[in-house]
Amino acid sequence: MRQLMGSRSERQVEPTERGLEKIRSQLQECAEGRGGEISTRQRAARLAEAYLRLDDSGRRAILRMIALEFGPDPVRVEAAHQAYQAAVGTPAQWDAEAQLRTAMRSSRLRILTQFNAIPQGVKFLVDLRADLLRFVADDPQLKPLDRELEARLSAWFDVGFLELQRITWASPAALLEKLVKYEAVHEIRSWDDLKNRLDSDRRCYAFFHPRMPLEPLIFVQVALLEDLADDVQRLLDIEAPLADASKATTAIFYSISATQTGLRGVSFGNFLLKRVVEDLQRDFPRLNTFATLSPIPGLVRWVQRNPQELAQAIFPADWKRLAAAGIEGPDSALFAELMEGKDAWTSDPQLARTLHDPLLRVAARYLLHANRDGKPADTVARFHLGNGARVERLNWQADTSPKGLAQSWGLMVNYLYDPDRIEANLEAFAGEGRIDASATVKRQARR
Amino acid sequence: MRQLMGSRSERQVEPTERGLEKIRSQLQECAEGRGGEISTRQRAARLAEAYLRLDDSGRRAILRMIALEFGPDPVRVEAAHQAYQAAVGTPAQWDAEAQLRTAMRSSRLRILTQFNAIPQGVKFLVDLRADLLRFVADDPQLKPLDRELEARLSAWFDVGFLELQRITWASPAALLEKLVKYEAVHEIRSWDDLKNRLDSDRRCYAFFHPRMPLEPLIFVQVALLEDLADDVQRLLDIEAPLADASKATTAIFYSISATQTGLRGVSFGNFLLKRVVEDLQRDFPRLNTFATLSPIPGLVRWVQRNPQELAQAIFPADWKRLAAAGIEGPDSALFAELMEGKDAWTSDPQLARTLHDPLLRVAARYLLHANRDGKPADTVARFHLGNGARVERLNWQADTSPKGLAQSWGLMVNYLYDPDRIEANLEAFAGEGRIDASATVKRQARR
Amino acid sequence: MRQLMGSRSERQVEPTERGLEKIRSQLQECAEGRGGEISTRQRAARLAEAYLRLDDSGRRAILRMIALEFGPDPVRVEAAHQAYQAAVGTPAQWDAEAQLRTAMRSSRLRILTQFNAIPQGVKFLVDLRADLLRFVADDPQLKPLDRELEARLSAWFDVGFLELQRITWASPAALLEKLVKYEAVHEIRSWDDLKNRLDSDRRCYAFFHPRMPLEPLIFVQVALLEDLADDVQRLLDIEAPLADASKATTAIFYSISATQTGLRGVSFGNFLLKRVVEDLQRDFPRLNTFATLSPIPGLVRWVQRNPQELAQAIFPADWKRLAAAGIEGPDSALFAELMEGKDAWTSDPQLARTLHDPLLRVAARYLLHANRDGKPADTVARFHLGNGARVERLNWQADTSPKGLAQSWGLMVNYLYDPDRIEANLEAFAGEGRIDASATVKRQARR
Amino acid sequence: MRQLMGSRSERQVEPTERGLEKIRSQLQECAEGRGGEISTRQRAARLAEAYLRLDDSGRRAILRMIALEFGPDPVRVEAAHQAYQAAVGTPAQWDAEAQLRTAMRSSRLRILTQFNAIPQGVKFLVDLRADLLRFVADDPQLKPLDRELEARLSAWFDVGFLELQRITWASPAALLEKLVKYEAVHEIRSWDDLKNRLDSDRRCYAFFHPRMPLEPLIFVQVALLEDLADDVQRLLDIEAPLADASKATTAIFYSISATQTGLRGVSFGNFLLKRVVEDLQRDFPRLNTFATLSPIPGLVRWVQRNPQELAQAIFPADWKRLAAAGIEGPDSALFAELMEGKDAWTSDPQLARTLHDPLLRVAARYLLHANRDGKPADTVARFHLGNGARVERLNWQADTSPKGLAQSWGLMVNYLYDPDRIEANLEAFAGEGRIDASATVKRQARR
Repeated sequence: MRQLMGSRSERQVEPTERGLEKIRSQLQECAEGRGGEISTRQRAARLAEAYLRLDDSGRRAILRMIALEFGPDPVRVEAAHQAYQAAVGTPAQWDAEAQLRTAMRSSRLRILTQFNAIPQGVKFLVDLRADLLRFVADDPQLKPLDRELEARLSAWFDVGFLELQRITWASPAALLEKLVKYEAVHEIRSWDDLKNRLDSDRRCYAFFHPRMPLEPLIFVQVALLEDLADDVQRLLDIEAPLADASKATTAIFYSISATQTGLRGVSFGNFLLKRVVEDLQRDFPRLNTFATLSPIPGLVRWVQRNPQELAQAIFPADWKRLAAAGIEGPDSALFAELMEGKDAWTSDPQLARTLHDPLLRVAARYLLHANRDGKPADTVARFHLGNGARVERLNWQADTSPKGLAQSWGLMVNYLYDPDRIEANLEAFAGEGRIDASATVKRQARR
Repeated sequence: MRQLMGSRSERQVEPTERGLEKIRSQLQECAEGRGGEISTRQRAARLAEAYLRLDDSGRRAILRMIALEFGPDPVRVEAAHQAYQAAVGTPAQWDAEAQLRTAMRSSRLRILTQFNAIPQGVKFLVDLRADLLRFVADDPQLKPLDRELEARLSAWFDVGFLELQRITWASPAALLEKLVKYEAVHEIRSWDDLKNRLDSDRRCYAFFHPRMPLEPLIFVQVALLEDLADDVQRLLDIEAPLADASKATTAIFYSISATQTGLRGVSFGNFLLKRVVEDLQRDFPRLNTFATLSPIPGLVRWVQRNPQELAQAIFPADWKRLAAAGIEGPDSALFAELMEGKDAWTSDPQLARTLHDPLLRVAARYLLHANRDGKPADTVARFHLGNGARVERLNWQADTSPKGLAQSWGLMVNYLYDPDRIEANLEAFAGEGRIDASATVKRQARR
Repeated sequence: MRQLMGSRSERQVEPTERGLEKIRSQLQECAEGRGGEISTRQRAARLAEAYLRLDDSGRRAILRMIALEFGPDPVRVEAAHQAYQAAVGTPAQWDAEAQLRTAMRSSRLRILTQFNAIPQGVKFLVDLRADLLRFVADDPQLKPLDRELEARLSAWFDVGFLELQRITWASPAALLEKLVKYEAVHEIRSWDDLKNRLDSDRRCYAFFHPRMPLEPLIFVQVALLEDLADDVQRLLDIEAPLADASKATTAIFYSISATQTGLRGVSFGNFLLKRVVEDLQRDFPRLNTFATLSPIPGLVRWVQRNPQELAQAIFPADWKRLAAAGIEGPDSALFAELMEGKDAWTSDPQLARTLHDPLLRVAARYLLHANRDGKPADTVARFHLGNGARVERLNWQADTSPKGLAQSWGLMVNYLYDPDRIEANLEAFAGEGRIDASATVKRQARR
Repeated sequence: MRQLMGSRSERQVEPTERGLEKIRSQLQECAEGRGGEISTRQRAARLAEAYLRLDDSGRRAILRMIALEFGPDPVRVEAAHQAYQAAVGTPAQWDAEAQLRTAMRSSRLRILTQFNAIPQGVKFLVDLRADLLRFVADDPQLKPLDRELEARLSAWFDVGFLELQRITWASPAALLEKLVKYEAVHEIRSWDDLKNRLDSDRRCYAFFHPRMPLEPLIFVQVALLEDLADDVQRLLDIEAPLADASKATTAIFYSISATQTGLRGVSFGNFLLKRVVEDLQRDFPRLNTFATLSPIPGLVRWVQRNPQELAQAIFPADWKRLAAAGIEGPDSALFAELMEGKDAWTSDPQLARTLHDPLLRVAARYLLHANRDGKPADTVARFHLGNGARVERLNWQADTSPKGLAQSWGLMVNYLYDPDRIEANLEAFAGEGRIDASATVKRQARR
């Protein structure tokens, strides 16, 4: 849209020596809380403006200042710790602990939370954390600041403070344009596309924080259907006939997007789905199946790193059929193509039919057995299995967009949320890493 | 958007004899209020559905039934009238008048108002009136029905029931898409165009009825500027720099659109502008000028019918300059072109310069002197002058869109709303048809 | 509460000759709509203030002016009527009807509706109608004005414009104090009493008009119980234990009050109960019985006028028991006492027991057979039977307040709203005046 | 109001051994977060119910469990601390700090914050803190738990999350009854008294937290006047004439009450007054004076402990006049009476006149010089001076209620909030403990 001439938000500038010195002294004043809370916070507002005006090098410099110069005093910590350890086991222990806690309290948080009183202050801090996360990767000295900020944001974004809201075509345009911006799974291409996703056979829900009223934190798009969807194209087709929601038996969560990078580590996903299920059950008593139609974003990448998985998934009978198509052994160009996510093979229907079973086997193994740090390697799988879902069904040619073909040969998966099994699944997954799956998928994953 | 398969709203069908007979008997039951108000209204809901399903021939047939078969009983009216006239001048007059009024009460309104209890009932009746207005033109027998419905809608849409609301980018998308649909002056081409018109240097206001919450009845778009706008392109340019609204001295009403054909005859325009001015004054105390930048939709059409106006507006000095451009006398192709609203002349800058004064003279005469039924011939002029505005300034090349060139050679006009003169202007215009105009425009209108 | 010193609303003054002359000329200007709608309405605001400042004699004088001086012109009506009758049966009839309608249109309504644009304008007109109703009784010349105003209020208060709202302890205090003020059946004695009636085993609903947001038009108080209440004391006892609403099977409407005298003739009662039943069914699926616990306000008064009813209701066996108590024949002081609504008899338990059957018989006959203008003589019975209820059960010692004993010997009645029978009852009642009643009550009404 | 029979909230029971054991194991499960967040929080809900059912001994037992058994592990803290100190000055310091912070994180907070997901969870924790504050006085082992909870509540009740709302007679009754309950300065005696305090010449504002919508956290009552109020009786008199707020020049904050004991240590008072001043200035542009009319709760108590202050405030001229009244020297019964807050002296007008100057002197000295921990001894003075106000004027016979006479001989004080001096006062007070006062009050405080 039109911009205020020379708007500050436009031009991000490099920091100057003098500018940083001034900021350092402002931070100092902030930390001391000089002059009553009100003037402290006014100072914070000026600081926030200065921060936003700077480019990445300037922002990183400020964050480093906060992280390194406003930490706790090691000497004071040492003394408090000594007193604490001496008191352990005696009645004095608890007072000593409180003293140690006080000694550990840094000025960093004091500085940061002052931003909360400016308009949009919470959003400012969430965005500042997003900056921090970008910088911390190659600057571990920022880590304690990140930890303190994450802890504070976790307190503020406690799920008890979040509000579930339904989003409809009657929601503010200013909110709806955020959906367009943040939709991470299936891009929203136009306002018509958006309106389609909010039509009478659809539902959209999001969590909001009271201080960020037009910013959905995480949102889910639901289609109300009479069967388990196996094909996302159908759901996104704005020409498709409108379903009669009152007859729906199945709710398909076909897109879940978290929007705020700065809230990484603050989880609210499983509450979202739980509350959405409750809301849907109240409005549509015939619903009995709650499932996703999800991408498998890491499948092809995993096979690249584990080419043997593809080879092992092709059974002798498959090899015969492949041979008939002129493909002889694992060195064939086809396999290179598959591992690079190219999609020429899809234009040969017979070849595609031959690949159907082997590729589903690979996907089943990937979902049930590929691990990273003891959890599913696939990020989407990790999310839903961690929420108590089970791997219900793999779907062939379910997302034939270039992205879908490139990342998972067009395969998608239904994760099923069975209200009766969620808790048990959740326990088993959290405790022993056990993954629930349908008999079919288990069979597909077998060698 | 996607449509329910075979949705009724899609297929409008011809009426059948039997269907109409059934409707006649339902109307009868409606008129009698048989069975308690509740079942009467349920019947009305069924009737409304039947009506919407029919094509124009069916709808007209129903409206004719209501108009012709449910009128007052002339015999009863006769008797009541006789008693009334006999009582005139005696104390019994007033009771007799009440009796006559009762005899005049027709069942038509009783039928129509029953639609009000169905969801969207008010909108249904407004749309039904729009149908009626289409039919009444060549079917004067529908007139009493139209009168009765207009009277009832006037009661319901009394300005005391209307709510002024500001429309912003945070308004419901379902409301904003109505702006796109109804904008009659300068087409809204995209959601970006719309967002631009709701930016911080703009305001948009509308009147709403409590029973039609997402349907603006009439809306006005305002630009906040530091001078009197002379060019609508600038206002519609989504790349133009954002103005600083806090410095604005001038509010330009650059588009006013009434949306409901079915409310013809129900006026609320002057209340809208009055309340908008109050709201703007409260929020922007520096505002001192309230004006429109308006089209002159009837100008070229008027000159077609009154070609002498163009000839008389070209003064001897102008003729000399035209002759230099090879244009000799009123038979030149140029004049035909002008009278047909063609715009080839605009591509010759010198010619355009020569035409500047004469065309402005024509426009000034048109606005100040062209009459129909004792009121300005131009519909937009009639609206603003009837609301107490004055003709302030004519603007050259103010709307160079094809439509603007075709209807008024690209000319636009500022109507000025001077809070100190509105009431006096209004009286003078309503009483004697006197039009207020600036000295410049008056001079331009002189021969 | 504290009052503005010399507040105008306090001192109502007598009209002066000069004051009335001024008002007459303002009415004239109003009627002519001189000066644009805006100044017309400003004038209306001044008129409204002048009206409110006057005492009854002044108000009546103004209303008479409007009624008598701004009526239709009989000469014009005559001419239009003649043309209309001449056109009957020809295609010109419908235009002529429209002309007659125009001739009948009086300036009265034009004056009155202008009050609608002032803040609280609707409430002003409703209250003005209440004045009018007081005056019209002995001043029939005000009748046509009353009719026109009633018609307009009926249009404005069409049930389609009304909103059903639940009233709770979280409702505005300014609204709740209206309940205290308007409760007509069982006086609300304190805010504690009110809070009790809004507790978790109660519901309160009201209809509101969008332009009178804190003024309930009619409200109903509901108790959620496990049986059919037979005793209103229990419902009003703020010390009684709280019921568990989730187990309730029976909703008792124990108080219904219409609040605006000025809306007499505008009915919305049956819509209220219908919608309340729907709302309750949604929230409490176990509810299966919807009934009132209603007073019988006209019972004792009716027996005063029809003393034989009491005599006939005492059967020989009753006489025997009465004789045992020393009461011999219909001239006993007891019967005088009963017919005057005195309650000494209630302090003799044995006597009370003896009277139980006879008094119930009288009440049953009263409800089923006492008529006025073909409708039940009892106003409460008329309301509920007209809405489709049936007389279900008479309750002994159900309202032992002085008022309850005086008007109906402490008897109350349950009217039952059986969703399956409402429509049929309504038809039968409206058509043939047939009253539905339980077998028991029918038996009690038998001789 | 009526209570659910045997309602749990009614009967608080003693804990049983077995019950406490069960709670201990539930706390354990809470701390471990066993079974996914959802079941953890369900467990928390059961725990909350169990807590509320217990009497003080049971509650204290649970809080001690949480405080003592779910603290950090001293051994782990020791190790992390050692690593941290070793890393000080090296790049590893910051990671080590984060590790130490993790080791310090106790399960206590994890347990407590889980209550946040239950309905009314925030209120539950605020009330639990109120319990804790009662117990911690004689049970210092609860201190670290209190500190952790205070820190978390400070994060949640950060002033950035609070909403300023005006409270009017149109506010929910459920909210207004909280005012009645919490008003700490001048008891609200009835709904009429309350309505008076919300009339058109009054304002009432409160801070709310989004999760406690009907619970004002702190509220202030404001009277709009034409002079500096010197007498609270006038403000509370429901028969007093209504002032014309549009002429007001002075806003008197005559009552400020914080409501939640459990939020002790979480400050938001000065933000409240600052925002209220802004809101009042916007609505009443003629306001130029913002001041309180405040009690002096500690005055008499202070004189009891410092009797010499009274003696020194009586100047020779006063002694003469006292002698005339038969009062000779500081041993007189009058002085004992004054120091005990008895009010017999007020019934002798001449004596009262004689005491006027001396008692004002004592009060001035008390406010300007009586200290506790370097801050004003008077809690109300501490609040307002800490917010930047100055001591403007002492008022004689300003609160002649028994409480007012007993605590401060009927004296009240105006603290003035001068927008131009607030920040400077705040700095001077916070930095050097300097108190701003008017020349008159300074003179009164002089010896």
